[in-house]
Amino acid sequence: MARVLALLGVGVVPADTPILRADDLGVLRGDGVFETIHVRDGEPWGLEPHLDRMARSAERLSMPLPPRADLVELAGQACAAWSPEVEGGLRIVCTRGPEDGGPVTAYATIAPVAAATIAARHNGVAVITATLGVPAEVRTEAPWLLGGAKTLSYAINMASLRWAAGQGADDVLWVSVDGYALEAPTSTLVWLVDGVLYTVPAATTGILAGTTAAYLLEHAGELGMRADERLIRPAELHDADGVWLTSSSRGLAEVRTLDGVTLDPSPETTRMRKLLGYS
Amino acid sequence: MARVLALLGVGVVPADTPILRADDLGVLRGDGVFETIHVRDGEPWGLEPHLDRMARSAERLSMPLPPRADLVELAGQACAAWSPEVEGGLRIVCTRGPEDGGPVTAYATIAPVAAATIAARHNGVAVITATLGVPAEVRTEAPWLLGGAKTLSYAINMASLRWAAGQGADDVLWVSVDGYALEAPTSTLVWLVDGVLYTVPAATTGILAGTTAAYLLEHAGELGMRADERLIRPAELHDADGVWLTSSSRGLAEVRTLDGVTLDPSPETTRMRKLLGYS
Repeated sequence: MARVLALLGVGVVPADTPILRADDLGVLRGDGVFETIHVRDGEPWGLEPHLDRMARSAERLSMPLPPRADLVELAGQACAAWSPEVEGGLRIVCTRGPEDGGPVTAYATIAPVAAATIAARHNGVAVITATLGVPAEVRTEAPWLLGGAKTLSYAINMASLRWAAGQGADDVLWVSVDGYALEAPTSTLVWLVDGVLYTVPAATTGILAGTTAAYLLEHAGELGMRADERLIRPAELHDADGVWLTSSSRGLAEVRTLDGVTLDPSPETTRMRKLLGYS
Repeated sequence: MARVLALLGVGVVPADTPILRADDLGVLRGDGVFETIHVRDGEPWGLEPHLDRMARSAERLSMPLPPRADLVELAGQACAAWSPEVEGGLRIVCTRGPEDGGPVTAYATIAPVAAATIAARHNGVAVITATLGVPAEVRTEAPWLLGGAKTLSYAINMASLRWAAGQGADDVLWVSVDGYALEAPTSTLVWLVDGVLYTVPAATTGILAGTTAAYLLEHAGELGMRADERLIRPAELHDADGVWLTSSSRGLAEVRTLDGVTLDPSPETTRMRKLLGYS
């Protein structure tokens, strides 16, 4: 299945059509917002919470967004051109537009979920920790640092993943300079201890509030678990009853090793993946 | 003078031509490098040190660049289409290209230097400090944080400038969590004390090594000054013999107030601006 591309106000166009101007602030400055949404059976999963988060991101960037109904229609146009049999990753992208004050550029694109991504969902991932260079709670006091906003400025996220690959790992767990686990470059940390499913508090740390993690914690009761948020140091994760990274495309990936330490496999992984509806 | 646009391997095209694909990592991930170069009398000023820095940035991103001669030719094509009477800001942009492994997208664009930018060169700027959220020297130990690389991921830079404007200031001086002045979102800090012209050490802090600041310090002897690098706390700047922000488009802008404290005007500003060749 080849990539699909839909432009706001235009509809579906060939996916390799050049669409962005050279002076679009989305490329010149990484100044814009995006969401990645899992497409299953031809439908976007959790479109509403993703659009909620995009609105929060845009607010933090003081950036106008197209009307929400238009973004829903855009996503629908892309999905209608997609093959329902293929798992897809839908990206909705809104840039600030041309530097001279042009309108927001908005588009939706769907690509197949990579085989390696699906494999990680089933086989788990080897993760290493790396500093994000910030104290755990500094970003919430400094809104210009854009904590909690999912922006197009992901160069450090990509560099962190490349660095991990160079170390033979699949992913990175970013750690604050004061020693707390924060998040991964494109996923959220979730762990289980004594029947409580935890994630890192986004409101106090400025990490991205994960939509998949939120779904999991909201529905933890269906698995007989409770849900909570707290800060944790990576060494404490070695003794957890399960550690996962969650994201829209990968869904749930169990952390098999953390800084080379093998973690015990969790019997809950399959139930949790099913709860999230990933095959 | 309207914007000029030249594409690598194509030459000059209308500036509003859409040139970037939706899946170009330059827009999806802010994954690419750029330089802004002052165009005076129709020629780029300091093209070589800018291309040196772009090469260092690309190396830190593990990103291939087109051959340097091609980038020089690209800059030349854009400048040849530019009016020599108008001060311009030349941007050379290289993105990682389409997500499926396409080639680097490279282009050059020139826009007039804004009247407000030229005014700041003559009238100075009101600056406020804001945390960058990092200790002064953490980034040099963590290459995945891309210290010293001029990437397309500038959302925080833009948000910091918007925040400053909202506070009634012209610019921000980023400060480390341990209290040292670092740099401004698009310029470099330079100050004078007892005949020594200082800037912040890029090699140990991961700030961007400023090309304009480097020229100024290299030629400080022509002004009867010595040159050095050191860390400084913002309060110490109140007693300096001159404080400036340097960058390619603005050149040299004297800091008139810092966090509301009026700084004494420096008699050196005009000589320094002339040394840099800005009108």
